Amino acid sequence: MNKSFVYDRTIRFQDTDAARVVYFANGLSLCHEAYEASLAASGIDLKSFFRGEAIAVPIIHASIDFFKPMFCGDRITISLKPTLLSPESFQIEYELFFDQDEVEKKAIAKAITKHTCIDINTRKRCNLSQELLKWIEH
Amino acid sequence: MNKSFVYDRTIRFQDTDAARVVYFANGLSLCHEAYEASLAASGIDLKSFFRGEAIAVPIIHASIDFFKPMFCGDRITISLKPTLLSPESFQIEYELFFDQDEVEKKAIAKAITKHTCIDINTRKRCNLSQELLKWIEH
Amino acid sequence: MNKSFVYDRTIRFQDTDAARVVYFANGLSLCHEAYEASLAASGIDLKSFFRGEAIAVPIIHASIDFFKPMFCGDRITISLKPTLLSPESFQIEYELFFDQDEVEKKAIAKAITKHTCIDINTRKRCNLSQELLKWIEH
Amino acid sequence: MNKSFVYDRTIRFQDTDAARVVYFANGLSLCHEAYEASLAASGIDLKSFFRGEAIAVPIIHASIDFFKPMFCGDRITISLKPTLLSPESFQIEYELFFDQDEVEKKAIAKAITKHTCIDINTRKRCNLSQELLKWIEH
Repeated sequence: MNKSFVYDRTIRFQDTDAARVVYFANGLSLCHEAYEASLAASGIDLKSFFRGEAIAVPIIHASIDFFKPMFCGDRITISLKPTLLSPESFQIEYELFFDQDEVEKKAIAKAITKHTCIDINTRKRCNLSQELLKWIEH
Repeated sequence: MNKSFVYDRTIRFQDTDAARVVYFANGLSLCHEAYEASLAASGIDLKSFFRGEAIAVPIIHASIDFFKPMFCGDRITISLKPTLLSPESFQIEYELFFDQDEVEKKAIAKAITKHTCIDINTRKRCNLSQELLKWIEH
Repeated sequence: MNKSFVYDRTIRFQDTDAARVVYFANGLSLCHEAYEASLAASGIDLKSFFRGEAIAVPIIHASIDFFKPMFCGDRITISLKPTLLSPESFQIEYELFFDQDEVEKKAIAKAITKHTCIDINTRKRCNLSQELLKWIEH
Repeated sequence: MNKSFVYDRTIRFQDTDAARVVYFANGLSLCHEAYEASLAASGIDLKSFFRGEAIAVPIIHASIDFFKPMFCGDRITISLKPTLLSPESFQIEYELFFDQDEVEKKAIAKAITKHTCIDINTRKRCNLSQELLKWIEH
């Protein structure tokens, strides 16, 4: 993608924990939601994509850095940008912002996920599908 | 509310389990999201409402019936309607539909939650706030 | 089962929400964990059971009543008892207690789940497997 | 800790997603459970620790690498080792193994979390408590 995909999300009660902010692992789930929305926007059928019947694209690495806490009701924007790493793998970079901070661009959090395409029966690496390549290069 | 509040949602990968459909308890979480959206639409500040610093409105009962499975990528609509039960409590009825089924109105699932207002320090029942009464009666 | 199955659990940070107690829908997830532990104790292989490759046993109804809040670090005990409803379905009753309250038997919460056996291809009802009948009647 | 803390866990249905393996972000939640168990074993009261009333110890960085998929019913062992980074922060390294692989020590996944102590009112950094230092150095 030449420009970032942007996803809007309100922080939900379920995202939070007893420290009253978003539970750290849910920060990555927010990013994954943005990834799903980006795939759908590109025309990829989420139901068959995530069932992974012939090939699957599991996450082999994820990392996240938090700069500010997120509270229930906060409205955030997630921008993401995928990059091809090899014929079999890609990574996605994510930046999270509060809606009102978008102009100043001070991120709440930044994250990365790395994905490798595998044959579901052998669990060996295989090439990314044409639709995924199209989504990455778009 | 004289007419139902309506909330649109796409089923996310995180909502599903190894049976490839929405994990049963997440069906209730989807309903709670609709409840939060309805409160926000009524002008209630979610951050302070769900922190529950002076009073809190915990769920004392929840039930759900499933008629059809929901898969990742499915687009659903949740309609909800709150009813006052006593000066201290209310219930919400939810109906979930697939977007394309809205005309036929065959529900995917139906749920109920019951909520009681408590003083956070004593944990004893107290009257619902004016903003909640307004939300219920609107 | 002639006597209840008992499952011990510590409330985790992830189970809680910004009201600092267990998120209501997670109360049902705690019950499902106890159900899984009970199946495993009966010799049922969880991996194949929950993949649902030929038959599946989805939850068609769930309800829960809360009497006391649960906090991170609380040690609880869940007792459960399944009952056959028809050749194709069963229900489970759950009671949750604080460990120290087990003698007095004042429940934190009570829940019910109803499960129906279906053929995964037709999604029509079919008879419960012998291993499930054995688990229910044991 | 001079030697690693070890935590045993069975993979639950709720941990999985429609690809039939543990949802990636839940891999980090498993690690956090091990962290909580380690704190409790050291005598730290989880309820007050995670409420974060005066000071809190939020996670500012998390990363995880997956080498093998985890399925519902799998029995795993998580070993963790905390290290002091500064008077105000520490990191924890985690390794996940299948129970049967513990002799061979081929990890399923490896993860890191970094934690910084803050004053909850100012949200500025402050020194780790004595009980946390004791837990790290034990």
